[in-house]
Amino acid sequence: MKRFLVRSISELVTCAGGKKRGRAMGDAGVIPDGAFVVDGGIVRAVGTRRELEAKYPGLPALDCGGCLVTPGYVDSHTHLVFGGERSSEFVRRLRGEPYMAIMAAGGGIAATVAATRAATEQELAEAALPHLRRMLAMGVTTCEVKSGYGLDTETELRQLRAVARLNGMQPVELIPTFLGAHAVPAGEDADRYIDYCIAESLPAAAESGLAAFADIFCEKGVFSLAQSERYLRRAAELGFRLKVHADEMSPLGGAGLAVRMGAVSADHLLQVKEEEVAALAASETVAAVLPLTAFCLAERYAPARRLIDAGAALAVGSDFNPGSCCTCEIPLSIALCCIHMHMSIEETLTALTVNGAAACGCEDRVGSIEAGKQADFLVYSCPRKEFLPYRTGANLVRSVYKKGELVYG
Amino acid sequence: MKRFLVRSISELVTCAGGKKRGRAMGDAGVIPDGAFVVDGGIVRAVGTRRELEAKYPGLPALDCGGCLVTPGYVDSHTHLVFGGERSSEFVRRLRGEPYMAIMAAGGGIAATVAATRAATEQELAEAALPHLRRMLAMGVTTCEVKSGYGLDTETELRQLRAVARLNGMQPVELIPTFLGAHAVPAGEDADRYIDYCIAESLPAAAESGLAAFADIFCEKGVFSLAQSERYLRRAAELGFRLKVHADEMSPLGGAGLAVRMGAVSADHLLQVKEEEVAALAASETVAAVLPLTAFCLAERYAPARRLIDAGAALAVGSDFNPGSCCTCEIPLSIALCCIHMHMSIEETLTALTVNGAAACGCEDRVGSIEAGKQADFLVYSCPRKEFLPYRTGANLVRSVYKKGELVYG
Repeated sequence: MKRFLVRSISELVTCAGGKKRGRAMGDAGVIPDGAFVVDGGIVRAVGTRRELEAKYPGLPALDCGGCLVTPGYVDSHTHLVFGGERSSEFVRRLRGEPYMAIMAAGGGIAATVAATRAATEQELAEAALPHLRRMLAMGVTTCEVKSGYGLDTETELRQLRAVARLNGMQPVELIPTFLGAHAVPAGEDADRYIDYCIAESLPAAAESGLAAFADIFCEKGVFSLAQSERYLRRAAELGFRLKVHADEMSPLGGAGLAVRMGAVSADHLLQVKEEEVAALAASETVAAVLPLTAFCLAERYAPARRLIDAGAALAVGSDFNPGSCCTCEIPLSIALCCIHMHMSIEETLTALTVNGAAACGCEDRVGSIEAGKQADFLVYSCPRKEFLPYRTGANLVRSVYKKGELVYG
Repeated sequence: MKRFLVRSISELVTCAGGKKRGRAMGDAGVIPDGAFVVDGGIVRAVGTRRELEAKYPGLPALDCGGCLVTPGYVDSHTHLVFGGERSSEFVRRLRGEPYMAIMAAGGGIAATVAATRAATEQELAEAALPHLRRMLAMGVTTCEVKSGYGLDTETELRQLRAVARLNGMQPVELIPTFLGAHAVPAGEDADRYIDYCIAESLPAAAESGLAAFADIFCEKGVFSLAQSERYLRRAAELGFRLKVHADEMSPLGGAGLAVRMGAVSADHLLQVKEEEVAALAASETVAAVLPLTAFCLAERYAPARRLIDAGAALAVGSDFNPGSCCTCEIPLSIALCCIHMHMSIEETLTALTVNGAAACGCEDRVGSIEAGKQADFLVYSCPRKEFLPYRTGANLVRSVYKKGELVYG
């Protein structure tokens, strides 16, 4: 069915109109009894059923059974490709064992780096596949994926090649990010490692063409503001668009740096200072919050309400990773946003779709149901968006379409 | 396959040994490379694979692929059978609208009572069916279900008949509870309604034989301690075993009343006082906590750690209901227990299985994998129990067996 009308939608949430900031996030573009025309995998027209049936008579119909329809979700922050797993460490941490003691015993990120270095490209791709299947079943149709568990040029590029391979193995569209500066390798000095990234791994990643974005973990005890700036300047020179892990555990000022460098997104933001909230709000940089990580670590949530009220464009990502947050549950993210971060369901849907796309620089292509964009959309088993927080933590997605094709359900 | 050996289990969590209290909850009866013999739907022997293959040579095998196996979950507290839904009210409450204003506008429990009175037995059963299917997919093999949305004899009995009908429609075994005293009907006086329950609905429910348990909502502004005691005494005289909604929103002393009346469980307990923690610990009454409700209402959690440390037998239920908590997500319950209530994964599994069964008075039959009990068990897609909190909020159950039969997966 190349050209068809999607109809019998009790509530069509379009999230149309591009990246949304501040209170405008509360407008999710809802059309009761909505419909849209798909042609060659692209949305051609959006309106009410009555309008479109009059304008496009005789089109074959995809009947949604009177259910809710939204754009596919865009997960704008994941560390999906890695070797090994760290379930035992997770439980040890819950028992109160300090992360530093776990690191000293060979755990922590060093364990993942060792397992990732030991894995082949195919092994890395295969390990990620079940997680991507689960994401798809929850409605994720586009997903950013970072390297960062190699900490050497060879393994970082292998991770990025695994992402490229995964793009051909399953329907979720993957956006690769080079995160060479995710941690300081064991026994290495942070400044010297940044020198290495600048001289070797960043240029190699740029030459490979495997990643459009570069990212760094700007954090006390990892990479300082000055080190982060050196790395990001070189990345920008090499043509990368920028992302920054900012102000997660300490208010170092990473969000301000992200704004000054024109980064596409500043991520985490649990400790973001008031003046940097204002800087984000005045900038084009998307504030990407990751509530699942805060939930998994029993930390306070990023100040989503304050960011939105100040006028920032907020996105919500999963931060799926093998350590602190080995989960990418969209229903739990929705519950945390609506119940614990005081976001409305409209703001939450905006954050998970078009603003997620903006945080990955692909809002021209995905993240909303509007003319000219890919027909990536979800049909639910419920009639209205209010069911998403109400049926707390439950996955109500019934079928998933990518570029107009049924890919799940 | 009437008689077979379940094997190739990386980690068999048996939860054997009956209701567990206090620190003993930390012993979940883990057998590495465990196995068990099922015969006619009943577990006949449990041990290591080596032991059982030697003792029962030539038995056909159910191969679990090197994965984790646990008993089926027992959800000891649900309000699963009701008419209508209250998604709009849930979202209004998240926006800060007071429950009393929602009630005044015809929402709240009164809305569910009206919709339940208007529904037929078959309609009530059919509305519950998708929720039971979801529960089964998450590994719930036994589930308590309360009436309480009729507030008149006719509708309360209709709810209980719907539970009986549901028992024949799908594999999850349902334990019915009469909750005539769930709320004071609109325009009615609490004392007079308790008189009505004592004179009419409790005896009618007893005569119907449709419920083994009676329950009451003992809460400030609903039913007082004295009213609750009158109701529970009459219920006990009529042969019901007792449950009490206790100390949820105010420290009224419902837990102490439950202990004095010899109730099987005292449920909620968010506001339980220190002396009643001690009373619960010294009694046979199970302390049933319901973390999903606290999560949905963004309230503090019941003091699970204090209850366990004091020596109480703790169970974890969902409280699935159409108002405050329209969810029964086992993976989210596990995450809340392990991450936010400081319970170990062993304690959590004990609370969700054998102690859940004890809270429903059926621990002689279900809740653990041990000789003589029903072969209700779960095979997961992961090798060890630590994955359950680690893969936060994700459902890792791959297949579900009830009385030795594959019923899901």
